[in-house]
Amino acid sequence: MSEHLFTVVEGGSITTPKGFKSGGLHCGLKKTERNDLAVIVCDVPATAAAVYTMNVFQAAPLKVTRESLANGILQAVVVNSGNANACTGEQGESDAYEMRAATARHLGIDENNVGVASTGVIGELLKMNCVRTGIAELPEKLNDGAVGAEEFCQAILTTDLVKKECCVKVLIGGVEVTIAGAAKGSGMIHPNMATMLGFMTTDADIHQEDLHSLLREATDVTFNMITVDGDTSTNDMLITMASGFAGNDTLNRLHPDWDAFAAAFTYVCQTLAKSIARDGEGAAHLIEVIVQGAVNEHAARAIAKTVVGSSLVKSAVFGADANWGRIIAAVGRAGVPVSPERVDISLGSIKVLTQSMPVAFDEEEALAYLQGDTVLITVILQDGDGSATAWGCDLTYDYVRINAAYRT
Amino acid sequence: MSEHLFTVVEGGSITTPKGFKSGGLHCGLKKTERNDLAVIVCDVPATAAAVYTMNVFQAAPLKVTRESLANGILQAVVVNSGNANACTGEQGESDAYEMRAATARHLGIDENNVGVASTGVIGELLKMNCVRTGIAELPEKLNDGAVGAEEFCQAILTTDLVKKECCVKVLIGGVEVTIAGAAKGSGMIHPNMATMLGFMTTDADIHQEDLHSLLREATDVTFNMITVDGDTSTNDMLITMASGFAGNDTLNRLHPDWDAFAAAFTYVCQTLAKSIARDGEGAAHLIEVIVQGAVNEHAARAIAKTVVGSSLVKSAVFGADANWGRIIAAVGRAGVPVSPERVDISLGSIKVLTQSMPVAFDEEEALAYLQGDTVLITVILQDGDGSATAWGCDLTYDYVRINAAYRT
Repeated sequence: MSEHLFTVVEGGSITTPKGFKSGGLHCGLKKTERNDLAVIVCDVPATAAAVYTMNVFQAAPLKVTRESLANGILQAVVVNSGNANACTGEQGESDAYEMRAATARHLGIDENNVGVASTGVIGELLKMNCVRTGIAELPEKLNDGAVGAEEFCQAILTTDLVKKECCVKVLIGGVEVTIAGAAKGSGMIHPNMATMLGFMTTDADIHQEDLHSLLREATDVTFNMITVDGDTSTNDMLITMASGFAGNDTLNRLHPDWDAFAAAFTYVCQTLAKSIARDGEGAAHLIEVIVQGAVNEHAARAIAKTVVGSSLVKSAVFGADANWGRIIAAVGRAGVPVSPERVDISLGSIKVLTQSMPVAFDEEEALAYLQGDTVLITVILQDGDGSATAWGCDLTYDYVRINAAYRT
Repeated sequence: MSEHLFTVVEGGSITTPKGFKSGGLHCGLKKTERNDLAVIVCDVPATAAAVYTMNVFQAAPLKVTRESLANGILQAVVVNSGNANACTGEQGESDAYEMRAATARHLGIDENNVGVASTGVIGELLKMNCVRTGIAELPEKLNDGAVGAEEFCQAILTTDLVKKECCVKVLIGGVEVTIAGAAKGSGMIHPNMATMLGFMTTDADIHQEDLHSLLREATDVTFNMITVDGDTSTNDMLITMASGFAGNDTLNRLHPDWDAFAAAFTYVCQTLAKSIARDGEGAAHLIEVIVQGAVNEHAARAIAKTVVGSSLVKSAVFGADANWGRIIAAVGRAGVPVSPERVDISLGSIKVLTQSMPVAFDEEEALAYLQGDTVLITVILQDGDGSATAWGCDLTYDYVRINAAYRT
């Protein structure tokens, strides 16, 4: 990624782009006193776009957000954690509509410009008395600085250990534009065309259809390339809002600085996606899998995701075991063409397989490398020029512990 | 399965069908003194068939066995554990051919009638001095009774805890025919058109092409419907040999008792497949997922395998947590059409979801059920008449422990 086209804003957050405020609070959906309700709001109706889970079962909030977004505009998104409002039937839909209406009323904006997002346990009705009280209190929590962003980020977490945010600046026609995002993981992560919950803000002035297509393209190479456990959520949603307050010439694909904006936007997505993988449930290591030389890009993505999603590869990384046999077995079951006799595999800079034949390597060196924070697996084929990168995490005792008793 | 068409032979094994002997020994491939080399041999060249892994990377023994089986006949299969002889290049192929030739020489049979199978670590060369000595000693270990079968079953195990075998009798034109099988699991189990290592014997006289097609059909609804960890091995192979010693009229698809034979044969496959799932690495529970009312059988199989393979469903079963939200999320990401508003889910006889809406259930009762040895998950759709059953196991601390340090 051409990082020189943009600058990372240290400490930046979703309220750094001009025109956005956010806030969060504890309304009673989580059992502990952690934030569980939040809102992000723009000073004006913002150009907006979203991508959604491909799961057949889609939670009620997704229906409501789709409706609000039909005209490409959102001014606010209300989000709760602790309850996914999924598989909750007509009552769940009614509750999502009520969340939208109440948020609009208390913020004094049009309810058709409000999106709704939920995350947490599936199949339980929302405690609407908590939600109602919470939404009424949200306006006084709004803040356009770091405090508001912090409260928001904390409110969207479930089993996540750390908040996930990223902010960059990029020059568009000589005008500084800011792009930021926040996201939550960290289980049921195997996005398909969309992702977990993600919220991106920018003060760019940008054409809605181009914002939407950029969101889809960036998602394909970032959020759609991570996996924690192979499970795709019913609530995945990534929403982006553009306030237009930067004052740049309206961005579209023909703008000379479009590539810089797209690179900056994609960098934010990639940073959030990697943060989710690194903070996957129980994760001790971030795993990055690079595939080069595949027959095409589709094949490269399939192979990268199959390797990074393999329970055996993930367990081996947890155990710092340079078991490349599991890597090649995963490459071979990805369902795409591979020439079996021409595969190179490296762990970091340690070559373990050349032309599908084992290379003698220093086990001590491999052990030391695999005990590091990040494990890079490179798979080089000789079938074409398809390449892709995927991210995931190791499979640990803590993953099992967390998921053996999530609901109860 | 119409169990009345055949009878289970308690204590029966691969040497129960007439005309088969087997034996096994420790030759030095496993670090402990457990058996790691075995052979099964028929008194005559047997009608034979096999199915193989769909993994792009196929171990050397598969190439050799395919060659031997080109004429539909095998008289012996030699198998080792402790080393998969996969990704071992030309030396690996040469070693597999040498295993075949040595076995033929010591048994006094045609080498083109010998199959070779290996299982264990990928990417290490076989210790051929151990293998050579072992093969020379195998003939004196041959036995046509329970002892030979026991030594064989022990020799094919890797991380398996228990041996897996099954034997049935069925009447074909009034003549008693016996079918038996042995198999090993228990990691890298997500068979695709073939399976782990499986060996079936029968004394039936049967047409080779019909034996082969029956093997494929039975595999599709048994071995191909289990998953332990979603990973497909490079060494999967299921071999069947028919001695013809029962003296029945030659079986083919037009024989009036074909259905009884097919049911008996499939029962053996299903029993072995379930045994593999139950003994999956680290498993504490057998999980059986039944899907009914899917749009077609393909969809039913996809849904059943997705649910039984979900890390979140598997973790929830380990924790005895009736978290049906994860089941419906898995149904929804199976990649096949499902009407989202018409899904019923039960855990054993406990209904938890009706028409996609939660049903209040007794948590104590659900906990007690989920703590049992076998967990049955039934998913009933209203989209068609496709049905399927899949088997798997829970995801436990022991799975992680076993696979964090398998190789080292």
